[in-house]
Amino acid sequence: MIGIDWGISSFRAFRLAADGHVLGRRGAPRGILHIAANGFAEALREEIGGWLAEGETRVLLSGMIGSRQGWVEAPYLPCPAGAAEIAAALVQVPFTGARVLLVPGLADIDDAGTPEVMRGEETQIVGALAGLGAEGIACLPGSHSKWARVAGGRITAYRTYLSGETFAALRGGTILGRMMTDGPTDAAAFDRGVARAADPGHLLHHLFGVRTLGLFGKLADNESASYLSGLLIGHEVQAAHPQGHTVHLIGAAPLCSLYARAIAACGGEAVIEDEDAAARGLALIGRSATWS
Amino acid sequence: MIGIDWGISSFRAFRLAADGHVLGRRGAPRGILHIAANGFAEALREEIGGWLAEGETRVLLSGMIGSRQGWVEAPYLPCPAGAAEIAAALVQVPFTGARVLLVPGLADIDDAGTPEVMRGEETQIVGALAGLGAEGIACLPGSHSKWARVAGGRITAYRTYLSGETFAALRGGTILGRMMTDGPTDAAAFDRGVARAADPGHLLHHLFGVRTLGLFGKLADNESASYLSGLLIGHEVQAAHPQGHTVHLIGAAPLCSLYARAIAACGGEAVIEDEDAAARGLALIGRSATWS
Repeated sequence: MIGIDWGISSFRAFRLAADGHVLGRRGAPRGILHIAANGFAEALREEIGGWLAEGETRVLLSGMIGSRQGWVEAPYLPCPAGAAEIAAALVQVPFTGARVLLVPGLADIDDAGTPEVMRGEETQIVGALAGLGAEGIACLPGSHSKWARVAGGRITAYRTYLSGETFAALRGGTILGRMMTDGPTDAAAFDRGVARAADPGHLLHHLFGVRTLGLFGKLADNESASYLSGLLIGHEVQAAHPQGHTVHLIGAAPLCSLYARAIAACGGEAVIEDEDAAARGLALIGRSATWS
Repeated sequence: MIGIDWGISSFRAFRLAADGHVLGRRGAPRGILHIAANGFAEALREEIGGWLAEGETRVLLSGMIGSRQGWVEAPYLPCPAGAAEIAAALVQVPFTGARVLLVPGLADIDDAGTPEVMRGEETQIVGALAGLGAEGIACLPGSHSKWARVAGGRITAYRTYLSGETFAALRGGTILGRMMTDGPTDAAAFDRGVARAADPGHLLHHLFGVRTLGLFGKLADNESASYLSGLLIGHEVQAAHPQGHTVHLIGAAPLCSLYARAIAACGGEAVIEDEDAAARGLALIGRSATWS
Protein backbone atom coordinates (compact mmCIF):
# COMPACT_ATOMS: atom_id res chain seq x y z
CA MET A 1 0.00 0.00 0.00
CA ILE A 2 0.89 3.65 -0.19
CA GLY A 3 0.67 5.83 2.91
CA ILE A 4 0.68 9.62 2.69
CA ASP A 5 1.12 12.27 5.36
CA TRP A 6 -0.40 15.32 3.64
CA GLY A 7 -0.24 18.45 5.74
CA ILE A 8 -0.58 22.21 5.48
CA SER A 9 2.84 22.79 3.96
CA SER A 10 4.28 19.41 2.96
CA PHE A 11 3.50 16.08 1.28
CA ARG A 12 5.28 12.87 2.38
CA ALA A 13 4.50 9.56 0.65
CA PHE A 14 5.66 6.08 1.72
CA ARG A 15 5.46 2.86 -0.25
CA LEU A 16 4.84 0.26 2.42
CA ALA A 17 5.33 -3.51 2.57
CA ALA A 18 2.66 -5.65 4.23
CA ASP A 19 4.75 -5.69 7.44
CA GLY A 20 5.00 -1.89 7.46
CA HIS A 21 8.54 -1.79 6.10
CA VAL A 22 9.20 1.38 4.06
CA LEU A 23 10.04 0.32 0.50
CA GLY A 24 10.21 3.80 -0.98
CA ARG A 25 9.54 7.41 -0.10
CA ARG A 26 8.80 10.72 -1.80
CA GLY A 27 8.53 14.19 -0.38
CA ALA A 28 7.42 17.47 -1.93
CA PRO A 29 6.62 20.99 -0.69
CA ARG A 30 3.07 20.43 -1.94
CA GLY A 31 1.03 20.99 1.20
CA ILE A 32 -2.71 21.59 0.86
CA LEU A 33 -2.20 25.36 0.99
CA HIS A 34 -0.17 25.14 -2.24
CA ILE A 35 -2.82 23.23 -4.21
CA ALA A 36 -6.02 24.58 -5.78
CA ALA A 37 -9.27 23.21 -4.30
CA ASN A 38 -9.93 20.97 -7.32
CA GLY A 39 -6.31 20.00 -7.85
CA PHE A 40 -5.77 17.26 -5.24
CA ALA A 41 -6.42 14.24 -7.50
CA GLU A 42 -4.04 15.55 -10.13
CA ALA A 43 -1.35 16.37 -7.58
CA LEU A 44 -1.68 12.90 -6.06
CA ARG A 45 -1.37 11.24 -9.47
CA GLU A 46 1.73 13.29 -10.28
CA GLU A 47 3.40 12.26 -7.04
CA ILE A 48 2.54 8.54 -6.86
CA GLY A 49 1.57 7.68 -10.47
CA GLY A 50 4.76 5.65 -10.84
CA TRP A 51 3.95 3.40 -7.86
CA LEU A 52 0.35 2.99 -9.10
CA ALA A 53 1.66 1.94 -12.52
CA GLU A 54 3.78 -0.70 -10.74
CA GLY A 55 0.64 -2.25 -9.25
CA GLU A 56 -0.19 -0.44 -5.98
CA THR A 57 -3.99 -0.12 -5.53
CA ARG A 58 -4.38 1.03 -1.92
CA VAL A 59 -3.69 4.61 -0.82
CA LEU A 60 -4.19 5.89 2.74
CA LEU A 61 -4.05 9.64 3.41
CA SER A 62 -3.72 11.38 6.76
CA GLY A 63 -3.32 14.98 7.86
CA MET A 64 -4.93 18.28 6.93
CA ILE A 65 -5.91 16.80 3.55
CA GLY A 66 -9.00 15.60 5.47
CA SER A 67 -9.92 19.08 6.71
CA ARG A 68 -12.42 21.60 5.36
CA GLN A 69 -9.55 23.20 3.42
CA GLY A 70 -8.47 19.80 2.06
CA TRP A 71 -9.80 17.31 -0.46
CA VAL A 72 -12.75 15.73 1.35
CA GLU A 73 -13.68 16.64 4.92
CA ALA A 74 -13.46 13.65 7.25
CA PRO A 75 -15.50 14.13 10.47
CA TYR A 76 -13.49 14.04 13.69
CA LEU A 77 -13.54 10.79 15.65
CA PRO A 78 -13.83 11.23 19.43
CA CYS A 79 -11.20 9.95 21.89
CA PRO A 80 -10.45 7.31 23.02
CA ALA A 81 -9.41 5.83 19.69
CA GLY A 82 -6.64 3.57 18.37
CA ALA A 83 -5.78 1.96 15.06
CA ALA A 84 -8.93 -0.19 15.00
CA GLU A 85 -11.37 2.68 15.70
CA ILE A 86 -9.60 4.92 13.19
CA ALA A 87 -9.57 2.17 10.54
CA ALA A 88 -13.33 1.72 11.01
CA ALA A 89 -13.94 5.43 10.36
CA LEU A 90 -11.93 5.95 7.15
CA VAL A 91 -13.56 8.12 4.50
CA GLN A 92 -13.39 7.22 0.83
CA VAL A 93 -12.08 9.76 -1.67
CA PRO A 94 -13.14 9.67 -5.36
CA PHE A 95 -10.12 8.62 -7.45
CA THR A 96 -9.73 6.48 -10.56
CA GLY A 97 -7.19 3.66 -10.61
CA ALA A 98 -6.78 3.07 -6.88
CA ARG A 99 -8.84 2.96 -3.71
CA VAL A 100 -8.03 6.12 -1.71
CA LEU A 101 -9.07 6.33 1.94
CA LEU A 102 -8.71 9.18 4.39
CA VAL A 103 -7.83 8.99 8.10
CA PRO A 104 -10.24 11.07 10.24
CA GLY A 105 -8.87 13.54 12.76
CA LEU A 106 -9.42 13.01 16.48
CA ALA A 107 -11.56 15.25 18.65
CA ASP A 108 -11.38 15.66 22.39
CA ILE A 109 -12.80 18.06 25.00
CA ASP A 110 -10.65 19.71 27.66
CA ASP A 111 -11.42 19.91 31.40
CA ALA A 112 -13.56 23.01 30.85
CA GLY A 113 -15.50 21.79 27.83
CA THR A 114 -13.49 23.50 25.09
CA PRO A 115 -13.03 21.36 21.97
CA GLU A 116 -9.68 19.96 20.86
CA VAL A 117 -8.75 18.86 17.34
CA MET A 118 -5.86 17.04 15.67
CA ARG A 119 -5.35 15.80 12.11
CA GLY A 120 -2.29 13.77 11.25
CA GLU A 121 -0.84 13.56 14.73
CA GLU A 122 -3.16 10.63 15.59
CA THR A 123 -1.50 8.61 12.81
CA GLN A 124 1.98 9.41 14.13
CA ILE A 125 0.96 8.48 17.67
CA VAL A 126 -0.50 5.17 16.42
CA GLY A 127 2.85 4.61 14.69
CA ALA A 128 4.71 5.17 17.94
CA LEU A 129 2.33 3.04 20.04
CA ALA A 130 4.66 0.04 20.18
CA GLY A 131 7.27 2.13 22.01
CA LEU A 132 4.73 3.86 24.24
CA GLY A 133 3.76 0.81 26.27
CA ALA A 134 0.56 0.24 28.19
CA GLU A 135 0.47 3.76 29.67
CA GLY A 136 2.34 6.44 27.84
CA ILE A 137 2.67 10.13 27.06
CA ALA A 138 3.33 11.32 23.52
CA CYS A 139 4.35 14.89 22.70
CA LEU A 140 4.33 16.21 19.14
CA PRO A 141 6.00 19.63 19.27
CA GLY A 142 5.31 22.26 16.65
CA SER A 143 3.09 25.22 15.74
CA HIS A 144 0.28 23.56 17.67
CA SER A 145 2.02 21.19 20.08
CA LYS A 146 0.04 18.13 21.15
CA TRP A 147 0.43 16.20 24.43
CA ALA A 148 -1.46 12.90 24.31
CA ARG A 149 -2.14 10.18 26.86
CA VAL A 150 -2.11 6.65 25.51
CA ALA A 151 -3.54 3.62 27.31
CA GLY A 152 -4.32 0.13 26.08
CA GLY A 153 -3.22 0.97 22.56
CA ARG A 154 -5.58 3.93 22.27
CA ILE A 155 -5.25 7.71 22.50
CA THR A 156 -7.41 8.52 25.51
CA ALA A 157 -7.05 12.31 25.75
CA TYR A 158 -4.84 15.14 24.54
CA ARG A 159 -4.20 18.87 24.91
CA THR A 160 -2.91 21.43 22.43
CA TYR A 161 -0.54 24.35 23.10
CA LEU A 162 -0.10 27.17 20.56
CA SER A 163 3.60 27.52 21.45
CA GLY A 164 5.21 27.38 17.99
CA GLU A 165 2.88 29.86 16.37
CA THR A 166 3.09 32.16 19.38
CA PHE A 167 6.89 32.14 19.15
CA ALA A 168 6.78 33.08 15.45
CA ALA A 169 4.17 35.81 16.02
CA LEU A 170 6.07 37.34 18.96
CA ARG A 171 9.32 37.27 17.04
CA GLY A 172 7.78 38.72 13.89
CA GLY A 173 5.31 41.17 15.39
CA THR A 174 6.61 42.63 18.67
CA ILE A 175 9.47 44.71 19.97
CA LEU A 176 11.04 41.46 21.24
CA GLY A 177 11.86 40.42 17.67
CA ARG A 178 13.62 43.66 16.78
CA MET A 179 16.65 42.68 18.83
CA MET A 180 16.85 39.12 17.50
CA THR A 181 19.42 37.92 15.01
CA ASP A 182 19.21 34.73 12.96
CA GLY A 183 21.39 31.77 13.76
CA PRO A 184 21.46 28.33 15.33
CA THR A 185 19.88 27.82 18.74
CA ASP A 186 22.15 28.98 21.58
CA ALA A 187 21.79 26.14 24.08
CA ALA A 188 22.76 28.21 27.13
CA ALA A 189 20.27 30.96 26.28
CA PHE A 190 17.57 28.35 25.60
CA ASP A 191 18.25 26.82 29.02
CA ARG A 192 17.98 30.25 30.67
CA GLY A 193 14.57 30.70 29.04
CA VAL A 194 13.44 27.29 30.28
CA ALA A 195 14.63 28.11 33.80
CA ARG A 196 12.86 31.46 33.68
CA ALA A 197 9.57 29.67 32.95
CA ALA A 198 9.77 28.18 36.45
CA ASP A 199 10.13 31.61 38.08
CA PRO A 200 7.17 33.27 39.81
CA GLY A 201 5.02 35.35 37.46
CA HIS A 202 2.92 34.78 34.39
CA LEU A 203 4.18 34.18 30.84
CA LEU A 204 2.89 37.66 29.86
CA HIS A 205 5.24 39.11 32.49
CA HIS A 206 8.17 36.87 31.59
CA LEU A 207 7.87 37.99 27.96
CA PHE A 208 8.65 41.58 28.92
CA GLY A 209 11.87 40.33 30.52
CA VAL A 210 13.15 39.35 27.06
CA ARG A 211 13.11 43.08 26.32
CA THR A 212 14.62 44.31 29.59
CA LEU A 213 17.38 41.69 29.74
CA GLY A 214 18.40 42.91 26.29
CA LEU A 215 18.21 46.58 27.33
CA PHE A 216 20.50 45.96 30.31
CA GLY A 217 23.02 43.93 28.35
CA LYS A 218 22.11 40.66 30.08
CA LEU A 219 20.90 38.97 26.88
CA ALA A 220 22.78 39.40 23.61
CA ASP A 221 20.98 39.91 20.30
CA ASN A 222 22.16 36.48 19.13
CA GLU A 223 20.81 34.82 22.32
CA SER A 224 17.42 36.50 22.43
CA ALA A 225 15.47 34.19 20.06
CA SER A 226 16.80 31.06 21.81
CA TYR A 227 15.84 32.50 25.20
CA LEU A 228 12.29 33.24 23.97
CA SER A 229 12.04 29.74 22.53
CA GLY A 230 13.14 28.25 25.86
CA LEU A 231 10.72 30.47 27.75
CA LEU A 232 7.71 29.32 25.69
CA ILE A 233 8.71 25.65 25.58
CA GLY A 234 9.49 25.80 29.31
CA HIS A 235 6.02 27.17 30.03
CA GLU A 236 4.46 24.47 27.85
CA VAL A 237 6.42 21.67 29.55
CA GLN A 238 5.61 23.03 33.03
CA ALA A 239 1.91 23.09 32.14
CA ALA A 240 1.62 19.89 30.13
CA HIS A 241 4.08 17.40 31.54
CA PRO A 242 2.62 14.85 33.94
CA GLN A 243 5.32 14.03 36.47
CA GLY A 244 6.41 10.42 36.65
CA HIS A 245 5.87 9.62 32.99
CA THR A 246 8.46 9.33 30.24
CA VAL A 247 7.55 11.60 27.34
CA HIS A 248 7.82 10.12 23.85
CA LEU A 249 8.71 12.93 21.46
CA ILE A 250 7.51 12.58 17.88
CA GLY A 251 8.55 15.02 15.16
CA ALA A 252 11.50 16.73 13.55
CA ALA A 253 14.72 15.85 15.37
CA PRO A 254 16.04 19.38 16.10
CA LEU A 255 12.79 20.51 17.75
CA CYS A 256 12.43 17.21 19.63
CA SER A 257 15.95 17.69 20.99
CA LEU A 258 15.01 21.10 22.38
CA TYR A 259 11.90 19.63 24.03
CA ALA A 260 13.94 16.78 25.50
CA ARG A 261 16.32 19.39 26.95
CA ALA A 262 13.43 21.37 28.45
CA ILE A 263 11.76 18.24 29.87
CA ALA A 264 15.04 17.15 31.48
CA ALA A 265 15.50 20.64 32.96
CA CYS A 266 12.02 20.32 34.49
CA GLY A 267 12.98 17.04 36.12
CA GLY A 268 11.34 14.75 33.58
CA GLU A 269 12.51 12.13 31.17
CA ALA A 270 12.05 12.03 27.40
CA VAL A 271 12.88 9.74 24.51
CA ILE A 272 12.87 10.84 20.88
CA GLU A 273 11.04 8.54 18.46
CA ASP A 274 12.46 8.13 14.98
CA GLU A 275 10.95 10.23 12.17
CA ASP A 276 9.02 7.34 10.52
CA ALA A 277 6.17 7.27 13.05
CA ALA A 278 3.78 8.54 10.36
CA ALA A 279 4.74 5.71 7.98
CA ARG A 280 4.29 3.09 10.70
CA GLY A 281 0.95 4.56 11.73
CA LEU A 282 -0.32 4.57 8.15
CA ALA A 283 0.76 0.92 7.80
CA LEU A 284 -0.95 -0.10 11.06
CA ILE A 285 -4.21 1.68 10.22
CA GLY A 286 -4.07 0.36 6.65
CA ARG A 287 -3.72 -3.19 7.95
CA SER A 288 -6.94 -2.83 9.98
CA ALA A 289 -8.86 -1.16 7.14
CA THR A 290 -11.50 -2.67 4.87
CA TRP A 291 -10.20 -2.08 1.35
CA SER A 292 -12.75 -3.89 -0.77
CA MET B 1 5.17 75.81 32.80
CA ILE B 2 4.73 73.45 29.89
CA GLY B 3 4.45 69.71 30.49
CA ILE B 4 4.87 67.21 27.66
CA ASP B 5 4.09 63.50 27.49
CA TRP B 6 6.26 62.45 24.52
CA GLY B 7 5.93 58.77 23.70
CA ILE B 8 6.68 56.29 20.95
CA SER B 9 3.78 57.28 18.73
CA SER B 10 2.29 60.48 20.12
CA PHE B 11 3.10 63.94 21.51
CA ARG B 12 0.81 65.58 24.10
CA ALA B 13 1.63 69.05 25.46
CA PHE B 14 -0.07 70.87 28.36
CA ARG B 15 0.25 74.51 29.36
CA LEU B 16 -0.02 74.38 33.12
CA ALA B 17 -0.91 76.96 35.77
CA ALA B 18 1.10 77.05 39.02
CA ASP B 19 -1.65 74.99 40.72
CA GLY B 20 -1.53 72.32 37.99
CA HIS B 21 -4.64 73.55 36.19
CA VAL B 22 -4.49 72.83 32.44
CA LEU B 23 -4.61 76.18 30.62
CA GLY B 24 -4.10 74.81 27.13
CA ARG B 25 -3.29 71.58 25.33
CA ARG B 26 -1.86 70.39 22.02
CA GLY B 27 -1.60 66.91 20.57
CA ALA B 28 0.16 65.60 17.49
CA PRO B 29 0.99 62.17 16.04
CA ARG B 30 4.66 63.09 16.39
CA GLY B 31 5.99 60.29 18.56
CA ILE B 32 9.74 59.77 18.77
CA LEU B 33 9.59 57.07 16.08
CA HIS B 34 8.34 59.69 13.61
CA ILE B 35 11.17 62.18 14.24
CA ALA B 36 14.76 62.03 12.97
CA ALA B 37 17.44 61.64 15.67
CA ASN B 38 18.55 65.29 15.34
CA GLY B 39 15.05 66.73 14.86
CA PHE B 40 13.68 66.84 18.42
CA ALA B 41 14.52 70.49 19.17
CA GLU B 42 12.93 71.64 15.93
CA ALA B 43 9.81 69.53 16.46
CA LEU B 44 9.46 70.87 20.01
CA ARG B 45 9.78 74.48 18.82
CA GLU B 46 7.16 73.89 16.12
CA GLU B 47 4.69 72.50 18.64
CA ILE B 48 5.13 74.89 21.58
CA GLY B 49 6.78 77.94 19.98
CA GLY B 50 3.57 79.93 20.44
CA TRP B 51 3.50 79.34 24.21
CA LEU B 52 7.23 80.19 24.49
CA ALA B 53 6.60 83.45 22.64
CA GLU B 54 3.89 84.22 25.22
CA GLY B 55 6.45 83.96 28.02
CA GLU B 56 6.69 80.31 29.14
CA THR B 57 10.29 79.42 30.09
CA ARG B 58 9.96 76.02 31.79
CA VAL B 59 9.40 72.80 29.86
CA LEU B 60 9.20 69.34 31.45
CA LEU B 61 9.28 66.24 29.22
CA SER B 62 8.36 62.70 30.17
CA GLY B 63 8.08 59.43 28.25
CA MET B 64 10.19 57.61 25.70
CA ILE B 65 11.76 60.94 24.69
CA GLY B 66 14.18 60.14 27.54
CA SER B 67 15.14 56.73 26.13
CA ARG B 68 18.11 55.68 24.04
CA GLN B 69 15.94 56.19 20.94
CA GLY B 70 14.87 59.63 22.17
CA TRP B 71 16.52 63.04 22.53
CA VAL B 72 18.79 62.58 25.56
CA GLU B 73 18.97 59.34 27.53
CA ALA B 74 17.92 59.82 31.15
CA PRO B 75 19.21 57.02 33.42
CA TYR B 76 16.52 54.99 35.20
CA LEU B 77 15.79 55.88 38.80
CA PRO B 78 15.27 52.87 41.11
CA CYS B 79 12.02 52.28 43.05
CA PRO B 80 10.77 53.40 45.49
CA ALA B 81 10.38 56.90 44.06
CA GLY B 82 7.78 59.68 44.12
CA ALA B 83 7.54 63.25 42.84
CA ALA B 84 10.41 64.48 45.06
CA GLU B 85 12.89 61.74 44.07
CA ILE B 86 11.97 62.11 40.40
CA ALA B 87 12.27 65.91 40.54
CA ALA B 88 15.76 65.54 42.04
CA ALA B 89 16.86 63.35 39.12
CA LEU B 90 15.71 65.43 36.16
CA VAL B 91 18.10 65.63 33.21
CA GLN B 92 18.69 68.85 31.36
CA VAL B 93 18.24 68.98 27.58
CA PRO B 94 20.09 71.55 25.41
CA PHE B 95 17.56 74.04 24.04
CA THR B 96 17.65 77.79 23.38
CA GLY B 97 14.92 80.05 24.74
CA ALA B 98 13.60 77.86 27.58
CA ARG B 99 14.86 75.50 30.25
CA VAL B 100 13.96 71.97 29.19
CA LEU B 101 14.16 69.13 31.73
CA LEU B 102 13.53 65.44 31.28
CA VAL B 103 11.83 63.03 33.69
CA PRO B 104 13.86 59.82 34.22
CA GLY B 105 12.19 56.45 33.85
CA LEU B 106 11.83 54.14 36.86
CA ALA B 107 13.64 50.83 37.20
CA ASP B 108 12.64 47.91 39.39
CA ILE B 109 13.66 44.23 39.77
CA ASP B 110 11.12 41.41 39.89
CA ASP B 111 11.02 38.55 42.42
CA ALA B 112 13.51 36.56 40.35
CA GLY B 113 15.97 39.37 39.64
CA THR B 114 14.83 40.32 36.13
CA PRO B 115 14.89 44.06 35.44
CA GLU B 116 11.75 46.16 34.92
CA VAL B 117 11.55 49.51 33.14
CA MET B 118 8.98 52.24 32.65
CA ARG B 119 9.16 55.65 31.01
CA GLY B 120 6.21 58.01 31.17
CA GLU B 121 3.97 55.82 33.32
CA GLU B 122 5.74 57.04 36.49
CA THR B 123 4.57 60.58 35.67
CA GLN B 124 0.98 59.43 35.20
CA ILE B 125 1.07 57.49 38.48
CA VAL B 126 2.45 60.55 40.31
CA GLY B 127 -0.45 62.49 38.79
CA ALA B 128 -2.95 59.97 40.15
CA LEU B 129 -1.33 59.75 43.60
CA ALA B 130 -3.90 61.99 45.28
CA GLY B 131 -6.65 59.51 44.43
CA LEU B 132 -4.55 56.46 45.28
CA GLY B 133 -4.38 57.04 49.01
CA ALA B 134 -1.77 55.78 51.43
CA GLU B 135 -1.67 52.25 49.96
CA GLY B 136 -2.81 51.85 46.41
CA ILE B 137 -2.58 49.85 43.22
CA ALA B 138 -2.29 51.59 39.84
CA CYS B 139 -2.73 49.77 36.54
CA LEU B 140 -1.77 51.36 33.22
CA PRO B 141 -3.09 49.03 30.53
CA GLY B 142 -1.56 48.98 27.06
CA SER B 143 1.06 47.35 24.87
CA HIS B 144 3.21 46.88 27.98
CA SER B 145 0.73 47.00 30.87
CA LYS B 146 2.10 48.17 34.21
CA TRP B 147 0.79 47.25 37.66
CA ALA B 148 2.31 49.46 40.34
CA ARG B 149 2.12 49.50 44.13
CA VAL B 150 2.05 52.92 45.72
CA ALA B 151 2.72 53.62 49.39
CA GLY B 152 3.41 56.87 51.21
CA GLY B 153 3.26 58.90 48.00
CA ARG B 154 5.91 56.78 46.27
CA ILE B 155 5.89 53.99 43.67
CA THR B 156 7.37 51.10 45.63
CA ALA B 157 7.34 48.30 43.00
CA TYR B 158 5.76 47.41 39.70
CA ARG B 159 5.42 44.57 37.16
CA THR B 160 4.99 44.68 33.38
CA TYR B 161 2.82 42.38 31.23
CA LEU B 162 3.25 42.25 27.43
CA SER B 163 -0.50 41.75 26.94
CA GLY B 164 -1.28 44.45 24.36
CA GLU B 165 1.60 43.65 22.04
CA THR B 166 0.92 39.92 22.38
CA PHE B 167 -2.71 40.47 21.36
CA ALA B 168 -1.67 42.42 18.27
CA ALA B 169 1.00 39.86 17.31
CA LEU B 170 -1.35 36.88 17.75
CA ARG B 171 -4.07 38.62 15.78
CA GLY B 172 -1.72 39.70 13.01
CA GLY B 173 0.56 36.68 12.82
CA THR B 174 -1.28 33.45 13.68
CA ILE B 175 -4.17 31.35 12.42
CA LEU B 176 -6.30 32.88 15.20
CA GLY B 177 -6.39 36.20 13.36
CA ARG B 178 -7.56 34.74 10.07
CA MET B 179 -11.06 34.28 11.46
CA MET B 180 -11.30 37.73 13.04
CA THR B 181 -13.33 40.59 11.63
CA ASP B 182 -12.99 44.25 12.57
CA GLY B 183 -15.57 45.97 14.70
CA PRO B 184 -16.31 47.27 18.18
CA THR B 185 -15.63 45.04 21.19
CA ASP B 186 -18.33 42.43 21.75
CA ALA B 187 -18.86 42.61 25.51
CA ALA B 188 -20.29 39.10 25.86
CA ALA B 189 -17.41 37.53 23.90
CA PHE B 190 -14.89 39.58 25.92
CA ASP B 191 -16.50 38.29 29.14
CA ARG B 192 -16.27 34.70 27.88
CA GLY B 193 -12.55 35.21 27.24
CA VAL B 194 -12.08 36.62 30.75
CA ALA B 195 -13.95 33.66 32.24
CA ARG B 196 -11.88 31.24 30.17
CA ALA B 197 -8.70 32.68 31.72
CA ALA B 198 -9.84 31.26 35.06
CA ASP B 199 -10.24 27.73 33.64
CA PRO B 200 -7.58 25.08 34.30
CA GLY B 201 -4.80 25.07 31.73
CA HIS B 202 -2.10 27.45 30.58
CA LEU B 203 -2.56 30.50 28.36
CA LEU B 204 -0.76 28.64 25.53
CA HIS B 205 -3.49 25.98 25.72
CA HIS B 206 -6.34 28.48 26.03
CA LEU B 207 -5.10 30.23 22.88
CA PHE B 208 -5.73 27.11 20.80
CA GLY B 209 -9.35 27.18 22.00
CA VAL B 210 -9.87 30.44 20.10
CA ARG B 211 -9.31 28.35 16.99
CA THR B 212 -11.39 25.31 17.94
CA LEU B 213 -14.36 27.30 19.27
CA GLY B 214 -14.45 28.99 15.86
CA LEU B 215 -14.13 25.69 14.01
CA PHE B 216 -17.09 24.24 15.91
CA GLY B 217 -19.31 27.28 15.45
CA LYS B 218 -19.12 28.25 19.14
CA LEU B 219 -17.38 31.58 18.50
CA ALA B 220 -18.41 33.79 15.57
CA ASP B 221 -15.87 35.60 13.41
CA ASN B 222 -17.07 38.95 14.81
CA GLU B 223 -16.65 37.70 18.41
CA SER B 224 -13.23 36.13 18.08
CA ALA B 225 -11.03 39.23 18.56
CA SER B 226 -13.02 40.30 21.64
CA TYR B 227 -12.72 36.80 23.11
CA LEU B 228 -8.93 36.81 22.57
CA SER B 229 -8.70 40.25 24.16
CA GLY B 230 -10.68 39.03 27.18
CA LEU B 231 -8.54 35.91 27.43
CA LEU B 232 -5.27 37.89 27.56
CA ILE B 233 -6.56 40.62 29.86
CA GLY B 234 -8.17 37.94 32.05
CA HIS B 235 -4.83 36.14 32.36
CA GLU B 236 -3.09 39.43 33.17
CA VAL B 237 -5.64 40.37 35.84
CA GLN B 238 -5.53 36.88 37.40
CA ALA B 239 -1.74 37.11 37.60
CA ALA B 240 -1.32 40.75 38.61
CA HIS B 241 -4.25 41.73 40.75
CA PRO B 242 -3.65 41.66 44.49
CA GLN B 243 -6.95 40.73 46.13
CA GLY B 244 -8.39 43.23 48.54
CA HIS B 245 -7.08 46.33 46.79
CA THR B 246 -8.98 48.74 44.58
CA VAL B 247 -7.23 49.10 41.24
CA HIS B 248 -6.83 52.64 39.89
CA LEU B 249 -6.87 52.45 36.10
CA ILE B 250 -4.91 55.09 34.21
CA GLY B 251 -5.07 55.40 30.44
CA ALA B 252 -7.40 55.64 27.47
CA ALA B 253 -11.02 55.29 28.58
CA PRO B 254 -12.13 52.43 26.27
CA LEU B 255 -9.24 50.16 27.31
CA CYS B 256 -9.63 51.11 30.99
CA SER B 257 -13.30 50.15 30.75
CA LEU B 258 -12.39 46.68 29.49
CA TYR B 259 -9.89 46.25 32.33
CA ALA B 260 -12.48 47.41 34.88
CA ARG B 261 -14.86 44.78 33.46
CA ALA B 262 -12.22 42.05 33.72
CA ILE B 263 -11.23 43.07 37.26
CA ALA B 264 -14.89 43.02 38.36
CA ALA B 265 -15.33 39.56 36.78
CA CYS B 266 -12.34 38.37 38.82
CA GLY B 267 -13.98 39.60 42.02
CA GLY B 268 -12.02 42.84 42.30
CA GLU B 269 -12.85 46.51 42.29
CA ALA B 270 -11.56 49.20 39.93
CA VAL B 271 -11.92 52.92 39.43
CA ILE B 272 -10.98 54.71 36.23
CA GLU B 273 -8.88 57.86 36.65
CA ASP B 274 -9.50 60.75 34.28
CA GLU B 275 -7.20 61.10 31.28
CA ASP B 276 -5.22 64.08 32.64
CA ALA B 277 -3.04 62.09 35.03
CA ALA B 278 0.00 62.86 32.87
CA ALA B 279 -0.66 66.62 33.07
CA ARG B 280 -1.10 66.48 36.83
CA GLY B 281 2.04 64.39 37.24
CA LEU B 282 4.10 66.82 35.13
CA ALA B 283 2.77 69.72 37.23
CA LEU B 284 3.59 67.97 40.53
CA ILE B 285 7.11 67.00 39.45
CA GLY B 286 7.64 70.47 37.97
CA ARG B 287 6.66 72.06 41.25
CA SER B 288 9.36 70.07 43.09
CA ALA B 289 12.01 70.71 40.45
CA THR B 290 14.94 73.12 40.59
CA TRP B 291 14.54 75.33 37.52
CA SER B 292 17.35 77.83 37.96
